[in-house]
Amino acid sequence: MCNFALEIMYDGTAYHGWQRQNNALTVQEIVENTLSRLTGEKISVCGCSRTDAGVHALSYVLNFESHTQIPPKNIPFAFNNLSGVTDIRAIRCKAVDKDFSARFSSVSKTYIYKIWNSKIPNPFTEKYSFFLPYRLNAEAMKKGAEKFIGTHDFAGFMAQGGSQKTTVRTVIKCEILEKYEWDEQIALIIEADAYLYNMVRIIAGTLIDVGTGKISPEDIPEIIDKRDRTLSGATAPPCGLFLKEVRYKEKER
Amino acid sequence: MCNFALEIMYDGTAYHGWQRQNNALTVQEIVENTLSRLTGEKISVCGCSRTDAGVHALSYVLNFESHTQIPPKNIPFAFNNLSGVTDIRAIRCKAVDKDFSARFSSVSKTYIYKIWNSKIPNPFTEKYSFFLPYRLNAEAMKKGAEKFIGTHDFAGFMAQGGSQKTTVRTVIKCEILEKYEWDEQIALIIEADAYLYNMVRIIAGTLIDVGTGKISPEDIPEIIDKRDRTLSGATAPPCGLFLKEVRYKEKER
Repeated sequence: MCNFALEIMYDGTAYHGWQRQNNALTVQEIVENTLSRLTGEKISVCGCSRTDAGVHALSYVLNFESHTQIPPKNIPFAFNNLSGVTDIRAIRCKAVDKDFSARFSSVSKTYIYKIWNSKIPNPFTEKYSFFLPYRLNAEAMKKGAEKFIGTHDFAGFMAQGGSQKTTVRTVIKCEILEKYEWDEQIALIIEADAYLYNMVRIIAGTLIDVGTGKISPEDIPEIIDKRDRTLSGATAPPCGLFLKEVRYKEKER
Repeated sequence: MCNFALEIMYDGTAYHGWQRQNNALTVQEIVENTLSRLTGEKISVCGCSRTDAGVHALSYVLNFESHTQIPPKNIPFAFNNLSGVTDIRAIRCKAVDKDFSARFSSVSKTYIYKIWNSKIPNPFTEKYSFFLPYRLNAEAMKKGAEKFIGTHDFAGFMAQGGSQKTTVRTVIKCEILEKYEWDEQIALIIEADAYLYNMVRIIAGTLIDVGTGKISPEDIPEIIDKRDRTLSGATAPPCGLFLKEVRYKEKER
């Protein structure tokens, strides 16, 4: 029995998120079915994150145990030939330590939230960026983003439905980039040790409120301190969200 | 009666090209139906190019005559609200000289052809880049691209079905860019005064043959001179092709 780490990429538009569900198609179901066909075993995978319906991944890591003799480097090709879909692709696979968990061994995860900030929608960013036709103040958003950096109790930036012992998280990086990929696109890049349920989308929604002038960047520390979900912004829609990178301790990958 | 120039953008995946057809949905049909609804008149448009099925446009210009009193700057918003589609978007509209033709007044058109050059396909470039899993020699392709610049008889780079008086065209710019938008993507950027039918896709196919080593960059001038379609490369698939920009004489826009 060997433990394998598999890195995949997916366009989440057609899926009801990562996690297996009885009545809806999810990324986990496609991945497990494909790996089961590939190995001839019943494969269960452990994913690094439970991305919501419509959220995308540029790099998503999962691990699974198998007796397969297929060399790990061949698994992505076999996976991509067998999956029957084009919106989920395996990129890399390697054998990892027995105790490696794609979920619990991660040191940090980086997300990108994209905002299409133009009066005119763009056919190519339609499913990949939140369309906001009124002009955002990116300078104010940059100032606001900095306030999230550090170790804080993010209880005010969490949707119902999460299950965690603590609501304290450490944000390592939080920045706003203008002209990201397109002149009219603004991106939030955020790296944290871990996230609460919908935390990135609520931070994005709060920074959008900063961009419209509804909230001042200087108000952010107080909004964090108050731990009150009614003070933070709306949950920004899923289509703008991409899991960009998951980092692990050197020895485990 | 006023002459209007309208700039649009479209994802061509779902359409059978630009030009109206009896039995298939085209971009022209959506545009004419939308403008007809918008103005209450039967609108016929003149497009800058007959893009093939599956080809995309980042900027496509068309013109049409109408009695409408709607201010030109409001037309894109009205168009985008009325079209019923999200893969075609109006960007800009202005009143132009009576003699302006989106097709005949153009000075040059720039196309981009994108190649996804990796062993692993990418869900996000699937419909927007030609997937070639074997490594291309981009340096050789750069040398080959230069050979197309200038005024040449491109009869060997034309598919059957075109109707033109001459097969001489002037290529103003022809270059290969590496790491275009993604590390694994190669792009051909080409600007010419006009094009023969499938000319960009055949030049792309020929430069791919240079990238694989089948043709040497030094062979290109002779291949052009021989005016023989059997010597140039295959017609590269439409999904990688984008109309990027149409230029007009200053006074006419």
